[in-house]
Amino acid sequence: MTETASRPTLEAVAERAGVSRATVSRVVNGGDGVREPLVERVRQAVEELGYVPNQAARSLVTKRHDAVAVVIAEPETRVFADPFFALQLRGISKELTAHDNQLVLLLTEGRDDHARVARYLAGGHVDGALVFSLHLDDPLPGLIQGAGVPTVFGGRPGWSDGTRDVVYVDSDNRGGARDAVRLLAGLGRTRIAHITGPLDQTSAADRLDGYREVMGDADPGLVVESDFTPGGGERAMRALLERCPDVDAVFAANDLTAAGAVRVLRERGRRVPEDVAVVGFDDMMPVAEQTDPPLTTVRQDIEEMGRIMARLLLRRLERRTADGAAGGADGSDAPVVLPTTLVRRASA
Amino acid sequence: MTETASRPTLEAVAERAGVSRATVSRVVNGGDGVREPLVERVRQAVEELGYVPNQAARSLVTKRHDAVAVVIAEPETRVFADPFFALQLRGISKELTAHDNQLVLLLTEGRDDHARVARYLAGGHVDGALVFSLHLDDPLPGLIQGAGVPTVFGGRPGWSDGTRDVVYVDSDNRGGARDAVRLLAGLGRTRIAHITGPLDQTSAADRLDGYREVMGDADPGLVVESDFTPGGGERAMRALLERCPDVDAVFAANDLTAAGAVRVLRERGRRVPEDVAVVGFDDMMPVAEQTDPPLTTVRQDIEEMGRIMARLLLRRLERRTADGAAGGADGSDAPVVLPTTLVRRASA
Repeated sequence: MTETASRPTLEAVAERAGVSRATVSRVVNGGDGVREPLVERVRQAVEELGYVPNQAARSLVTKRHDAVAVVIAEPETRVFADPFFALQLRGISKELTAHDNQLVLLLTEGRDDHARVARYLAGGHVDGALVFSLHLDDPLPGLIQGAGVPTVFGGRPGWSDGTRDVVYVDSDNRGGARDAVRLLAGLGRTRIAHITGPLDQTSAADRLDGYREVMGDADPGLVVESDFTPGGGERAMRALLERCPDVDAVFAANDLTAAGAVRVLRERGRRVPEDVAVVGFDDMMPVAEQTDPPLTTVRQDIEEMGRIMARLLLRRLERRTADGAAGGADGSDAPVVLPTTLVRRASA
Repeated sequence: MTETASRPTLEAVAERAGVSRATVSRVVNGGDGVREPLVERVRQAVEELGYVPNQAARSLVTKRHDAVAVVIAEPETRVFADPFFALQLRGISKELTAHDNQLVLLLTEGRDDHARVARYLAGGHVDGALVFSLHLDDPLPGLIQGAGVPTVFGGRPGWSDGTRDVVYVDSDNRGGARDAVRLLAGLGRTRIAHITGPLDQTSAADRLDGYREVMGDADPGLVVESDFTPGGGERAMRALLERCPDVDAVFAANDLTAAGAVRVLRERGRRVPEDVAVVGFDDMMPVAEQTDPPLTTVRQDIEEMGRIMARLLLRRLERRTADGAAGGADGSDAPVVLPTTLVRRASA
């Protein structure tokens, strides 16, 4: 909260209000020990000056920083390697920019840094947070709650039981998975495998649930846990071929693992889709179209999910400002679950 | 700077120091009108409590937020499309994390948002800034200077005349370009073209200078301006083939454009390197190795550049803290220019 010589912020307000710089400073920082008439004079001075001199004085009027943190609960290297995050950020960036809010992306090297992220969030640098790619035992949600920062989650958080005031945006992962497996079953496939995502993420767990809803008591050997990466898809496919050489279909939990699985199938001389049909999830470009053969997949609108996350948070912050920081839940704070659509290409 | 119920920060310090909450608040926010003995008692209380309760009280002790902004002067979509930025961020992230500093990446949709970025920087949310990919007429450097935030630049800023206190980390772009063109000339090539980067960036302008230093008064038709993207490289190569069908070598200003150029040459039935030899710049993985044929290129250590940028800034901030916010220049604030190395593969 230092003042720089080139931005004589509090001084100008102090002169206009006819109060000391210290008084302005105290009003800005909560008004402790300052009489209400003086508080009012300082507020008026800021308004009369016709512009908002810096972030501190700005938040005096609006109680806002016009900045929103984005926290992706993955190491920085994963954030830049997986186009999923770029797409979600694109939607968030467009929406925040349209409302002149600064996107503040807090990057980490891994979970050990999450306490530091929470400290930053608690430090009064942003109005709210958008958090995604949470894993089940991540301390981040608890830390964020402790920081008292309004938050919208991307993907249903694992601890959410639907009764508490947790706002999130998600895709219908279970329904999309059911569609994928039903398609494969409808093609006459009987040995349908599933390469999952990391099962400490609800998106992966929900897709597995959808698979099981259709498959009933299928051979548990047909399910292999993976990690949403192409290399993970390759490893999972190799394990599957060893364990169940008669596999005739694969539902992969995302397109990146599907692409890895297809590569291994081709290496081993299995034709896709003739010998093994493959369905992905995401409809991620360019991987879905450039895989050979192009992927049949379950489409979710990732960019739109980002946009809706940002929109929900901004709406919440507006209400907070309007209500004098009351905030809290109302009808529009319900979770948003977007439908998925099956996209047919050549792989199934 | 609101306090939340779950983080009773100033209260604890106030009780320990035996002063009012308002006094603690005033000390935290600059100490105006608080007598030195009281300031000292508050400082001691914070230290005795053995932990740093929130960002405001923390900065009371260290005058630091332990957060560094990174600003890439490109639209968010470019940031995620060009692996150059991911690599530089990787180096920055590792270095900042090793010093328990939070990386705060400020994303934008484009130049229109740079005033908002500067507002955030001026708002007292970070200790310093790392800024890269500046274009010549970008108002950002001026805005950042106005914000009074210590800054280290990635790449020599265009306005820097070497005399002012501008700290930057760069590669020897000119020397690297000379090496590339000399290699091609040494192979007996006489019609050596150059596909440039955006010439409002010093990295591109310096590489063009290096090309010209070796080529002297070569045919100006052999130089085509491009934009550091694969698509731009394709367009530039098509234009070159139309204008100078006898071209027998291409020095491309980065590997992405080199890869685009190679694609077009193959389409047109020109063999690389037999008919047209190609040299890139960056040694960017995986593109440099996966281009067919693999690229001969000028290697710069992009991740290391990011690490050094972060290290220079942190050192500067430490001096600032030690000197009581004096900061300023000394011997170690000189620009750092890293050498490049030529990497021979199959394309030249």
